[in-house]
Amino acid sequence: MFDGGVRFVDDYTVPEAGRQEALIRISMAGICNTDMEIIKGYLGFRGVMGHEFMGIVVRAPEYAADLINKRIVGEINCGCGECEYCTTGMEKHCPSRKTLGIQGKDGVFAEYAALPVSNLHVLPDAVSDEEALFVEPLAAAFEIEEQVEIKPAHDILVLGDGKLGILCALVLNLSGAHITLAGKHEEKLRIAKNKEIKTVNINDKKEKIDKKYDIVVEATGSPEGFTSAIEHVKPRGIVVLKSTIASSQQINLAPVVIDEITLIGSRCGPFKKAINALSEKKIDVKPLISGIFPVKDARNAFEEAKKKENLKIIIDFRAK
Amino acid sequence: MFDGGVRFVDDYTVPEAGRQEALIRISMAGICNTDMEIIKGYLGFRGVMGHEFMGIVVRAPEYAADLINKRIVGEINCGCGECEYCTTGMEKHCPSRKTLGIQGKDGVFAEYAALPVSNLHVLPDAVSDEEALFVEPLAAAFEIEEQVEIKPAHDILVLGDGKLGILCALVLNLSGAHITLAGKHEEKLRIAKNKEIKTVNINDKKEKIDKKYDIVVEATGSPEGFTSAIEHVKPRGIVVLKSTIASSQQINLAPVVIDEITLIGSRCGPFKKAINALSEKKIDVKPLISGIFPVKDARNAFEEAKKKENLKIIIDFRAK
Repeated sequence: MFDGGVRFVDDYTVPEAGRQEALIRISMAGICNTDMEIIKGYLGFRGVMGHEFMGIVVRAPEYAADLINKRIVGEINCGCGECEYCTTGMEKHCPSRKTLGIQGKDGVFAEYAALPVSNLHVLPDAVSDEEALFVEPLAAAFEIEEQVEIKPAHDILVLGDGKLGILCALVLNLSGAHITLAGKHEEKLRIAKNKEIKTVNINDKKEKIDKKYDIVVEATGSPEGFTSAIEHVKPRGIVVLKSTIASSQQINLAPVVIDEITLIGSRCGPFKKAINALSEKKIDVKPLISGIFPVKDARNAFEEAKKKENLKIIIDFRAK
Repeated sequence: MFDGGVRFVDDYTVPEAGRQEALIRISMAGICNTDMEIIKGYLGFRGVMGHEFMGIVVRAPEYAADLINKRIVGEINCGCGECEYCTTGMEKHCPSRKTLGIQGKDGVFAEYAALPVSNLHVLPDAVSDEEALFVEPLAAAFEIEEQVEIKPAHDILVLGDGKLGILCALVLNLSGAHITLAGKHEEKLRIAKNKEIKTVNINDKKEKIDKKYDIVVEATGSPEGFTSAIEHVKPRGIVVLKSTIASSQQINLAPVVIDEITLIGSRCGPFKKAINALSEKKIDVKPLISGIFPVKDARNAFEEAKKKENLKIIIDFRAK
């Protein structure tokens, strides 16, 4: 449980599942950059952190009893069910929503978690436990094409070779468009390079981003990323903003107006598309796993997650 | 001529018209907020300022001889004619463009100006000289519906009761959508109120913006405008950015990502639509005229343009 610093507590109580909720025994959970931002104070969250998980349903309302013992993943936004957003398929924008491990709802860095039945997706056998941990961030990558029409002729630049940046590049690469991934870590860029994606290591003096793109995806998680995105998008182009950064930053919006750039904020996405892509082996997420830690080593897992050279760090709640 | 401060010079030389350009005798010119930003240092412009004008063609290339003696207005962006933007109808985004009185090209606060023939629009008799000065800013207001599909069911908030804000409200009101104009000046808001547009005077403690909108148009020209726009747009909504502000500002982009807001930079627009709207009396711009000054009083005109209570200040180059 997280209370403003990273504390690990033993006096943990199994959460109470609501009337339309299932109780889930967490098998594995992934540490996301948003978790690291929460530790820095993002959204002022208090409670059990964690929102990337796979688990087994141990209890469910009678009408969803067939979920019991199923391997599942879960969408993280829990809407009120009644407002204009919830009733038009936009629960994730419900103004009184709770978000698993991020806002108002205990998360998955614990033995058990509770989520509405309607948030759960049963995993096909073809998706392994480790792969399932990528459903949530992979869905966030698929959200881009829900918001922007991607054409094969498009030149697309993805800024940032962290987990989300790499996943965005891998997903956009399925569209047939021309993708370039720019980052600072040769090892991370290689994951995209191995899939025939063009890469630019901006720390390497011989390489640089030398043109403007139709679409730029900002996934650096750093304040400089925005400036770089604006600099490398064509007039009338689109910048997709994927990183949530806790702090304000100094920004000059004049080029956005002059060049009539469109900026699109982009967050959680369609779980089904992500599960299908994994199940059909269209996306290989295994190279993004940097370490799997048993829950007793959770503190080490967080230390590793902080290191720039690492990608996904996983906590295994079954391992002793 | 402007050289970093506002200087008025007598040793003015009539500009040389290029091969495909017309020479125009300026009848009247309007002072725009962009001019005031240029005086503050925006884009580091040096030369003759001014880009809102109407005039009479006095010289033209042979193939455009029928323009001579015609009353005209002119588009302000002059592209190279050869790049990917110029050849696809987006001259205004040509990377090597010159912009009348703003970038690389002498403007209209002078007796004569030169512009490419293809930039000129002949004015119908139904549009008066004074009204014609509003074609350029009115076109900028019409640009919004070129970029965003406006539906009658939309709730739209326009922030800022300056010239551009009022014009945006008047233009958007033609769409049948529900428009609210928010500003700080009762006199200015009244121009919109007289057209059955809802207004909010945020300086009046009894009034406030008390809901969220599908679309927010930011036309305040102030750094706070952006924050207010983000605050008052619905999740998944659209913010249209109309003001170019010279300075950087402290901005928190997290709400843009979380609420998946789309920001669209919007600049110059379609002259033909603006001319038609004036000609068909769909838009009444006369209440926006705060003063017409003969050129010998140009210095006073600039002083008046600085005053918050004034809207459009016009310089008449024919009046002695």
